[in-house]
This record gives sequence, structure tokens and C-alpha cells, in this order.
Amino acid sequence: MASTGQVIRCKAAVAWEAGKPLVIEEVEVAPPQAMEVRLKILVTSLCHSDVCFWEAKGQTPLFPRIFGHEAAGIVESVGEGVTDLEPGDHVLPVFTGECKECRHCKSEESNMCDLLRVNADRGVMLSDGNSRFSIRGQPIYHFVGTSTFSEYTVVHVGCLVKINPAAPLDKVCLLSCGISTGLGATLNVAKPKAGSTVAIFGLGAVGLAAAEGARISGASRIIGVDLYSSRFNEAKKFGVTEFVNPNDYDKPVHEVIAEMTDGGVDRSVECTGSISAMISAFECVHDGWGVAVLVGVPSKDDSFKTHPVNFLSERTLKGTFFGNYKPRTDLPSVVEKYMNKELELEKFISHEVPFSEINKAFEYMLARASLRCIIRMGE
Amino acid sequence: MASTGQVIRCKAAVAWEAGKPLVIEEVEVAPPQAMEVRLKILVTSLCHSDVCFWEAKGQTPLFPRIFGHEAAGIVESVGEGVTDLEPGDHVLPVFTGECKECRHCKSEESNMCDLLRVNADRGVMLSDGNSRFSIRGQPIYHFVGTSTFSEYTVVHVGCLVKINPAAPLDKVCLLSCGISTGLGATLNVAKPKAGSTVAIFGLGAVGLAAAEGARISGASRIIGVDLYSSRFNEAKKFGVTEFVNPNDYDKPVHEVIAEMTDGGVDRSVECTGSISAMISAFECVHDGWGVAVLVGVPSKDDSFKTHPVNFLSERTLKGTFFGNYKPRTDLPSVVEKYMNKELELEKFISHEVPFSEINKAFEYMLARASLRCIIRMGE
Repeated sequence: MASTGQVIRCKAAVAWEAGKPLVIEEVEVAPPQAMEVRLKILVTSLCHSDVCFWEAKGQTPLFPRIFGHEAAGIVESVGEGVTDLEPGDHVLPVFTGECKECRHCKSEESNMCDLLRVNADRGVMLSDGNSRFSIRGQPIYHFVGTSTFSEYTVVHVGCLVKINPAAPLDKVCLLSCGISTGLGATLNVAKPKAGSTVAIFGLGAVGLAAAEGARISGASRIIGVDLYSSRFNEAKKFGVTEFVNPNDYDKPVHEVIAEMTDGGVDRSVECTGSISAMISAFECVHDGWGVAVLVGVPSKDDSFKTHPVNFLSERTLKGTFFGNYKPRTDLPSVVEKYMNKELELEKFISHEVPFSEINKAFEYMLARASLRCIIRMGE
Repeated sequence: MASTGQVIRCKAAVAWEAGKPLVIEEVEVAPPQAMEVRLKILVTSLCHSDVCFWEAKGQTPLFPRIFGHEAAGIVESVGEGVTDLEPGDHVLPVFTGECKECRHCKSEESNMCDLLRVNADRGVMLSDGNSRFSIRGQPIYHFVGTSTFSEYTVVHVGCLVKINPAAPLDKVCLLSCGISTGLGATLNVAKPKAGSTVAIFGLGAVGLAAAEGARISGASRIIGVDLYSSRFNEAKKFGVTEFVNPNDYDKPVHEVIAEMTDGGVDRSVECTGSISAMISAFECVHDGWGVAVLVGVPSKDDSFKTHPVNFLSERTLKGTFFGNYKPRTDLPSVVEKYMNKELELEKFISHEVPFSEINKAFEYMLARASLRCIIRMGE
């Protein structure tokens, strides 16, 4: 069914200024244009990237804006040319897309679509450079093509994943960003063998998802590294068996880990974005076979530095983006991992709030009190 | 057959001092001890590492010493406990070994044997800390456990590869170091797919062997990068299709290559040891799937530096040692690649000299006139 062409009026949480509480407003959501889909968001959660761009410290400020990118919803209407989806389909919107036509989409290895690769500096739709959101005629900017802090939103069809309609949206919404990022870093990139040792740097939601991937892979030892010892207890639920707080030692953390593991871990996954953690994560893997995977987003001026002999002694360093998942091709199977109980999502959900209290989700994250806070749109 | 216990007197080329011409001397070669093998060297070649340690600029000086590690020979006698080899077997001595018992040897991925990993600072045998070479009672030091600039030498059994006796030793001797190092870097580590683009940094023998690996893999474009344009013509024989001399451009070489290849090559292999070439080799691979492999040996104080986003955009950086070949397990099949004409070795041989003129081989290499100079021991 093509779009009826009607504007929808609904509630959205608008960020009028950087760092100021969101305001629930009535917004107008234009109908989807060619290759676009309008969907009803049922549940969204808050991811750290939303907070970063809302604070806009170092990022391009673009306001007023509707944030939100980790969510789940149901297709309301589709624009011209959309054949893969129809109203009623259950979908996950994703901040990076899959056009299925470009070199990256055609490559077996890449998920960095040329057309729909994440672009946080663009606040408008790709096709016509306009926003689909407005308040009394004033355009409101989009965020990473998703803007899920709204009861209705418009998304490019290449950024929507059709999923099993039996999947509970208030759980699998987590797969549209952070959890897939960490999980895929381990399952798709680090690929630890059963019985191997894995170090995870950073025990936030992404790091714990990476640990969950190591647990699913059958790792025998999962060493969690974090500057906040309070996170260690929670991490046990995710398979973390040992803990290292770098502040507790006089020597570099890669030496601590090498001593714990007879020369280094088999795999490491870096989920903090701190450059020193990235270097440690690389230098703590065993020579001969160790693989380190970078996930965390660094600062603009960071420089990764190490002695090249660390590579020549047969260590591998890789980076990943969205856990190397191609969203439309691969995420449905991750939803199935949850459905068949291989992957546990409930333990990532530390808080829930109704949409009207969305600012509480920001407070929890800024206080490091939450892993994931689910925001229910209907409430 | 166990060793007869007789000392053998034969000719060897002895380096009495750093950087001074070798002197052909009559040396005494003791019989092999437990787990050792004495072999007759029929042909050796000169590798760049021999020259480096002979010059001893930056390396630990250890003289008098018998250099040489790229060679082929025939087993003369074996020490106690040697069951894999017997007199008459054709073998390649290798500077790094394979004990088949340690974690590295048992790992599918590593060839960095704990027991027999290369150690250029050790000039004696592992078992008893003594040399098997002497001149009138004065011990002469070994080099990397091989010392093939001698008509007879003693080598640990774990550093000897039994090969097809039909293989011509004056060709397959090249496989005991440099050619396998470059070839394996491409075939075992970079693993380019048929039709892909590959950049090779450094067009010496190791780099040309890496190019040969790319040719064998069916690469569609092989871009050779070297500061000496005179090497470009020779490189065509090894499948190199395009040439870049970084001195010919005002912009960084990784940008030159990115422009030539619509964003970067699929694979690169660095065979110079220059830190700037290492960084360029990494930064010139395509995002999403590019893999760079480091082969060249850097200086002690070098630091590999790059922006971590280069990793996060799904590039991989690996290093390799001896082309990731496990010597005893893997090299026999590389010899077979030559025997069935998949791999061409003749084109690496630019010069030949009799043993009596071994110093000429050093002169050719220092003048960058040779790729590989074969030294025939019987002459």
C-alpha cells in the first residue's frame, strides 16, 4: 500500500537546545516519499550516542532535533518504490543502512553501505534534503535517519529491518544499535573459539554485549576491564569470570593480563573509545594468534601508537562498525537468536520509563546508573 | 643411523669481524648431539639478514661467526633421538623451527615455536650452549641455528624440512627464507581473492615473492611501490602491473593509491621495514574489507601511528613471521608448488657464484644489483 499522503500529528520529544531537557511536543510527520517508510514507534531505548549528540560537545550542533535510534515499531505506510515492506510489518530502524546495490553491500565482508552509511551531521532526508518533521511549519531535524523519540517517524527503507512479528518489540529494540554492535564485534569479528580466553575493555552495555558474545562462543575465561569496579558484579551475569581495574595496578594493564593468561588472551574487544584502552587491548593479546577488535569511538585527535613488532609477532588488529552486521540481511537472524534463547536480552534492561518521562532515561545514563532504559511510547 | 661421532674437516666462510670480507677456512665440524643433524650443504644463497648481522649495525656483534641461513643440503648423520630424518634425506635448514610440542606449534594459527623461534643473539647450540664449529680449538659461533656458509653444518632437527628428493636444490634453497616469507605473507595472511587489487611495498626479493603470491592468487592489479624506479621493469616478471614511486608525488602514497583504485586496494603487503611504508601500507587499503600485512623488520625505536578511525572503518592490520609457514609441516607443499610449476623460482636468481667467491654475493647485494645470488658449495 502506498502512502495515503496524510500528515500525521503525534507526540515527539524535541531537543530545542544542546544539553537541555527534551520537550514533548505535538509534531507533524509528513508522509513518506519515494523509498521511504513511515512507522509507528512502539518502544525506543536510549543509547550513549543520543546523549553525545544531544550534549553536542565536539559534535556539530543541529537543533531543534528529534533524537533516538534504538527502537522497534510497525510500518504505517510506505512511499513509492517500496516493495519489501508493507503496513503492519514489524521493523527495527537502524542508524546505518543497506542499499544492497553498492560495492560495500555487494562485498561479503563490509556493512558500510555507501548510500546509507551513518551520517550524524545530516538532519534531513537523503532524497530531497528536507525534514519530514515540523511544528507549525518550523522544520525539526532528524537524527541518523531514525529519530525514534517520536510516536511516528519516517525512515529510508534501506534502514529498516523486517523482523519476526512474534518477537517482543520491548526486548528486540535493543538489537537496533548497542547490543548488536558489541555482540557482533565478538561473534563476527573476534570469533573466539570454544575454550579460549577473551578480554573485554569497558563494561557498559556494548562491552557486556561483547561479553555475551564470548559467553555464547564458549570462551573459558572472560576478563572484564573497567575503571568502575561497581560494574564488576553486574558483569558476572554476562559471563565475565574475572575483573581487572587498571587503577588497582602499578603496571600497564596489558602486562597484568599477560601474567594472568600465560602471555596474553586469545581475543580482546575494546568498547570504551579511550585511546589508551585501545592500545592496551591490542597489546594484551597473545603473540602467534591474538586478535584485538576495536569498537569504541575515539576522539578526533587520537593517535593509535604501538611498536610494529607487536604486529610482526603475529597479532591482528581489526575495527568494526555495528558489529559487522549488514542490517537488513543479518539482524533477522539475531532476533531469532533471542527467540530461541541463545541470546539473553532481558538482563540488559535496567530501567523502564513512559515516554512522558524520557528525560529520566538521560539522567540515568549520565549518572551511569542504567545499562539500558526502555521508553514505552504509548504511555 | 646414529652419528659416527667423527669430526668432519671442511671449508667454511668465516666472518672474523663485522663488515670485513669472509675468509674461507678449514673448520672442524663436531658430530651432531641429541636431536641434532649434521648435513652437507650443497647450495646456499645470500639473504639480506645475513648482511645485516654481518654489518652488525645495531645488532649484537658476535664474531667469529659462520653466517648463512637460506640453503639446501643432504643429511650426513643424525644424533640421538632423531627419528624423522636419516642420512641421504634432502633437507632445507630454516632459521626458525617447529618442535611440534609447544602451544604455538599446536595452534593452527602460529608458527612462532616457543623452543626454536629464531634467536640471532644465540651463537651456540640449544642443548649444551656450545658451538659445533672450531678452528684449531677456537669455537666459531653459529648464526640462527643454520650457518650454511659451510660445507657441513649442524642443525637442530626441528629446524630441518625434509623435502621431495627430486626437487633441484639450487632452486628450492630459496624457499628456506626470503621467498617463503613473501609468498606466505600473501597466500597465508593477506589471502587476496581472484580479481582483487594488491599493493606491494618494496620490490626486493621478499616483496617480489609477495607479488608472486598475488599473481598465483589471481589478483587483477598488483601495484608495486618502491623508491627505486629501476626495480619496476624487473617486477613485471612477478606479475606487478603498475608502479608507484612515492618520490614522484606531492601527496602521501596512500592517497595516490586510493585515487588509482577508487578508495584503496583490497590487500597490501609491506616488505621494506620502513615505518612510513608500514603506515602507508595500512592506510592504502579500502575501508570495509581491506587487509594490510606487515613483513619488513622495523628499527627498535619505531612507532606505528595511525588514527584509530582507520581501524573502525573495518580495516585489518596483521603482521607475519616467515609467511606464517610452519617450516616442517608446510614447506614440503611449497616445494611441490615449484615442482608443479605453480610457483616460479628461477626468476628470483639473478646471480650465481662458486663458494670461493662468496664475497661477491655480498657486493652484489650491497650494490642492490642482485635479487638472489646462488652460492654453489662444491665449486
